[in-house]
Amino acid sequence: MPVAHMGKLPAMRTAPNLESLSVTDEAEDGAPELDRSLAASQQRSDAIEADLAVHPHNYRLLTGDRPTGRLHIGHYFGSIANRVRLQDLGVTSMLVIADYQVIYDRDGVGALQENVLSAVADYLACGIDPARTTIFTHSSVPALNQLLLPFLSLVSESELHRNPTVKEELEHTQGRAMSGLMLTFPVHQAADILFGKANLVPVGKDQLPHIEVTRLIARRFDERYGRADPARPVFGAPDALLSAAPVILGLDGTKMSKSRHNTIEIGMGADETAKLIKKAKTDSERHISYDPQNRPEVSNLVLLTALARGEEPAAVADEIGDGGGGGLKKACTEAVNEMLAPIRQRRAELVADEGLLRQVLREGNERANEVADQTLLEVRTAMQMIY
Amino acid sequence: MPVAHMGKLPAMRTAPNLESLSVTDEAEDGAPELDRSLAASQQRSDAIEADLAVHPHNYRLLTGDRPTGRLHIGHYFGSIANRVRLQDLGVTSMLVIADYQVIYDRDGVGALQENVLSAVADYLACGIDPARTTIFTHSSVPALNQLLLPFLSLVSESELHRNPTVKEELEHTQGRAMSGLMLTFPVHQAADILFGKANLVPVGKDQLPHIEVTRLIARRFDERYGRADPARPVFGAPDALLSAAPVILGLDGTKMSKSRHNTIEIGMGADETAKLIKKAKTDSERHISYDPQNRPEVSNLVLLTALARGEEPAAVADEIGDGGGGGLKKACTEAVNEMLAPIRQRRAELVADEGLLRQVLREGNERANEVADQTLLEVRTAMQMIY
Repeated sequence: MPVAHMGKLPAMRTAPNLESLSVTDEAEDGAPELDRSLAASQQRSDAIEADLAVHPHNYRLLTGDRPTGRLHIGHYFGSIANRVRLQDLGVTSMLVIADYQVIYDRDGVGALQENVLSAVADYLACGIDPARTTIFTHSSVPALNQLLLPFLSLVSESELHRNPTVKEELEHTQGRAMSGLMLTFPVHQAADILFGKANLVPVGKDQLPHIEVTRLIARRFDERYGRADPARPVFGAPDALLSAAPVILGLDGTKMSKSRHNTIEIGMGADETAKLIKKAKTDSERHISYDPQNRPEVSNLVLLTALARGEEPAAVADEIGDGGGGGLKKACTEAVNEMLAPIRQRRAELVADEGLLRQVLREGNERANEVADQTLLEVRTAMQMIY
Repeated sequence: MPVAHMGKLPAMRTAPNLESLSVTDEAEDGAPELDRSLAASQQRSDAIEADLAVHPHNYRLLTGDRPTGRLHIGHYFGSIANRVRLQDLGVTSMLVIADYQVIYDRDGVGALQENVLSAVADYLACGIDPARTTIFTHSSVPALNQLLLPFLSLVSESELHRNPTVKEELEHTQGRAMSGLMLTFPVHQAADILFGKANLVPVGKDQLPHIEVTRLIARRFDERYGRADPARPVFGAPDALLSAAPVILGLDGTKMSKSRHNTIEIGMGADETAKLIKKAKTDSERHISYDPQNRPEVSNLVLLTALARGEEPAAVADEIGDGGGGGLKKACTEAVNEMLAPIRQRRAELVADEGLLRQVLREGNERANEVADQTLLEVRTAMQMIY
């Protein structure tokens, strides 16, 4: 479950050639207007995307994952590949392993150590460079977590309820009481983004409201508590970078999810990958085509093959032609395993060196703490809480 | 607004001669049974009170104040005098100046610096010894504040709503949206108490539910997240020390409150005190008696005189006899000013030395951070969040 990306710049400013959108206004009842139109968000995101190649150093990126299990190809194509791309463009990035998010809706932390170290191995194997991307664990940065208190004063209970993730969670729990942690989730995410003054957060369209809450908190903080430096707000309003990544389904044609066991983990063996794809759902039509609407399962395997090869889905479908489900699965297995082979090899080496993985985390946590301590100092200065 | 008291002991344990009450059970709907009977709480509190003189070192005390204005005689007789008594008994104590509580229901922090430094001066002048009582500001202890995250996972939204302070606040705000900070107030207070493993919190009867939430969080943490040391829970369940302090009204006979301007501040001049008492409400009956039910205003001045002199109200009333409102006010003014004279003199000296007040806070904050860092380490160890 991707959280979001954060970079680090000498001075946080909007790219010079981008018009600065005004922050959202409040509706008459005092409720925040969370719906900056999707079109406006897309337009803004496109402009930033174009500017990223020109002025990568103007951006600070925050992304993250919830360490509840192994990372899989859905994470890879949906976010990790994009993080690597942005990092390699020169955007300094922060990547939070959101360990406190594990307990939003579970009674324990599960195999947390294993999941966290596995995620670090996945990141590094996929091309995240810890020298350029600060990888850190949420629970290791007290000054980040302290931001929750002032931020909670800036949103009302009803605003928390209006958040779609909170709403969805409430429906999803089916009577199970929602924890205080889940309810305050939008504020934690604001703290994750703002503690490092990220100005860019890659999200899907359904996550836009999180960015809006964060923008709201940044603006209200300035209005209500003032500034450490009179010349600029403590927090700027971050922008969403809307993902262009296509949605990949699970191998059974339903939503890809660890709990449905329909994923291909990044760290899986080639044989296990082959077995899983062999069992994937297809249809009875021999001719392979790319038609996500009418042939979702087949098209999903075509898409996966295309993504792994770096080709267009239609071309892949044409090539397989009358090869049927068997031919498609064979092509898909080869493409996925070939693409993942060097990643998996690096991953195996990394996993064998737990000391290195822990060192990466320690160094990332140290950097994140430096950033968070500095931000908290500004927050406390603005709020007159320096004694 | 008193928050609560916390002491510091080599090992936290229940006094040997006190039966350990079992923690509260949950009702069938999963809701916490917040109503440990008042009688049971009073009995437990009385037993602790008796044991305090014998085994003061078995107790760790947390108390605190919300720095929204000057401390007054209501604070003095209601809690500060008791804190000094417990400190002098040998109970190691922590005293939180709850600066984040200022923004629960206000749009800004007000004259926060002034209020905080003034509170420190009041404490010291009244006999709080910073060598034995750790005075600290809430916003200065990130590891304490981080406890909010795991703790929020242990209570449901409906449990937060059931808290009487939250309920009252919701009624009080009259349509104004309740902030996320106010809603999560019971959890902050649990963090204030548990970060230093306080086992004793002096409260009024109406604050018992806060202690129950804290006990609930301590127990659930142990059940859900386990332990750092297998031999003992990270958090013990604290007890309430029910206040025996009589309720003092404001000089107008209504509830004493800074915002009603019916208080006598500890740091006020003797002349101003005399003027305020002169304007106090009395009644037309010349003979002075102590009859709080039928003569609340007169009885309140009698009580204040008695408390200031360390005598019984009835004896004070007898002495004044037919002196009427004038005689009563004269006696009250003399008693209050006499009692406060040495406190006010020390206070004037302290206020003149801001450097000293800030040093007391810095040292207190340093100690509080050491305690909080250690507790957070145990919390993170129990939760497998050590990387």
